[in-house]
Amino acid sequence: MVNFLPMRSPLSKRQNAEFSSEIKMKIFEDIPDMQKFAESVRKSGKRIGLVPTMGYLHEGHLSLIRNIRKSCDVVVVSVFVNPTQFGIGEDLNKYPRDFKRDQELCRKENVDIVFYPEVPKMYPEGYDTYITVEKFSGIMCGVSRPTHFQGVTTVVAKLFNIVKPHIAIFGEKDYQQAIIIKKMVQDLNFDIVIETSPIIRESDGLALSSRNKYLNKNDRKNAVLLYQSLQHAKKLFQKGERDILIIKQEMAKMILQIPNARIDYIEIVAPDTLRSPDQIQERAVAAVAVFIGKTRLIDNLLLEQ
Amino acid sequence: MVNFLPMRSPLSKRQNAEFSSEIKMKIFEDIPDMQKFAESVRKSGKRIGLVPTMGYLHEGHLSLIRNIRKSCDVVVVSVFVNPTQFGIGEDLNKYPRDFKRDQELCRKENVDIVFYPEVPKMYPEGYDTYITVEKFSGIMCGVSRPTHFQGVTTVVAKLFNIVKPHIAIFGEKDYQQAIIIKKMVQDLNFDIVIETSPIIRESDGLALSSRNKYLNKNDRKNAVLLYQSLQHAKKLFQKGERDILIIKQEMAKMILQIPNARIDYIEIVAPDTLRSPDQIQERAVAAVAVFIGKTRLIDNLLLEQ
Repeated sequence: MVNFLPMRSPLSKRQNAEFSSEIKMKIFEDIPDMQKFAESVRKSGKRIGLVPTMGYLHEGHLSLIRNIRKSCDVVVVSVFVNPTQFGIGEDLNKYPRDFKRDQELCRKENVDIVFYPEVPKMYPEGYDTYITVEKFSGIMCGVSRPTHFQGVTTVVAKLFNIVKPHIAIFGEKDYQQAIIIKKMVQDLNFDIVIETSPIIRESDGLALSSRNKYLNKNDRKNAVLLYQSLQHAKKLFQKGERDILIIKQEMAKMILQIPNARIDYIEIVAPDTLRSPDQIQERAVAAVAVFIGKTRLIDNLLLEQ
Repeated sequence: MVNFLPMRSPLSKRQNAEFSSEIKMKIFEDIPDMQKFAESVRKSGKRIGLVPTMGYLHEGHLSLIRNIRKSCDVVVVSVFVNPTQFGIGEDLNKYPRDFKRDQELCRKENVDIVFYPEVPKMYPEGYDTYITVEKFSGIMCGVSRPTHFQGVTTVVAKLFNIVKPHIAIFGEKDYQQAIIIKKMVQDLNFDIVIETSPIIRESDGLALSSRNKYLNKNDRKNAVLLYQSLQHAKKLFQKGERDILIIKQEMAKMILQIPNARIDYIEIVAPDTLRSPDQIQERAVAAVAVFIGKTRLIDNLLLEQ
């Protein structure tokens, strides 16, 4: 509740807007506070929407926020760089963080709640429980990152139990992640609707990612070849090519024009099951993961007529 | 809503009581029905209590029902013989089932809801998601039943998401199970209070279990030695014995008086961490698992002054 402050000098219109929006957006750092608030929102009949993020927000995240607002009353953005989804030797420590900036961006988007817990609150000493979507986690990104999806499903389930959303939204850039989370929600009977939202791209086509920050000027320029290889795959498909090996070879040729590129995988899979047939049937998702130097980038595109 | 039935002959007092209680207790077989009902109960501000069971109810289950009623408004009993907690070669198929009897017992206890799903609804084709509490699941019962607790935690998490309880209760006979579930709830941030309820015993001391039904007359008589060995351990402890090996040897001697007994384990562990020290400190739990013929029985007792 806002108290009436008679001694305070009147705020300018702009200050006032900032003031009221500052009051409006709540930041919870403690799990029980977040749970208690979520429970009271649910009891009031309002719908909670969750946007789970690792922070360092970009237009991709903002589009998730804008999209979920359409189907809920209270938008919660979680900002948590989740250690259990990073493997040994991966970029956990250098992963970019800027909570002040994230906060401001959330405020501008009229986010209602930011949930921003510290690591020891999410994973206290002796933490011991993990969730695995078994078959879907051992393919594609799961080959080079064998513990990654277990970390993702575990933290997302925790966030679901803390934020208690009616609906949660995930970006389609992490296509396999979105499929795995849908599978977890279905298998474990979470009473939550999972939405996905299209990839947001730079003007040259590079998919937005917090990790793009790692790229030097030259690598950044070359990185567009990932998207171009996906577009090329789509063209081949639309011209009638159905042989997955041929499409993958063509894609690899393009990507390997980047001098310091190492292909992690190129896959063409069924959109729902992530299975890899020899021949594409109606539709398929082409997905790539490529190291440019030390930076691992992913991207994907739906192949359809 | 009860319709007025003018043509129906008046029910006797007893019939009437049965009739009204029959109307009162709901049985849900479908997951979305149960979830929808649970959500409406929560919104109304009432507290839901869950008693997860595998059916074939006995006084132990009934004591759980009576105990949880004290701290909730709506009591839900789930009846589901969970296949994922049975190992290969275990007694899944012959596990005793009698839903008609379970239903009657629940009705007599004024249970509000029985959740009674079929296996393909809980585990549809392609089911792929499992929850593991890692360290706690590989000891004690987890040694001879390596996939057991993964099945338990998975189904309990599913039941939590379906029944949406504020509180759930588990029997202390399955001591390790109760500890593992508490750990899962804590780690995954389920906003649910876990209670436990003391073991209910036959007059000679045998812990009630649906599996006691498997015992022939002689084995049933001999089975009391499990409890007697635990009582003996407690006496030794109270007399000052702190050496775990000595207590375990004494227990084994007693249990092996049963001609067809095979000891699965005898453990003396810290009550909260299940760790096994060399010397007992303040308190400990003595726990046994013994095959009598093909029937595996478990029991435990708190050792304290």
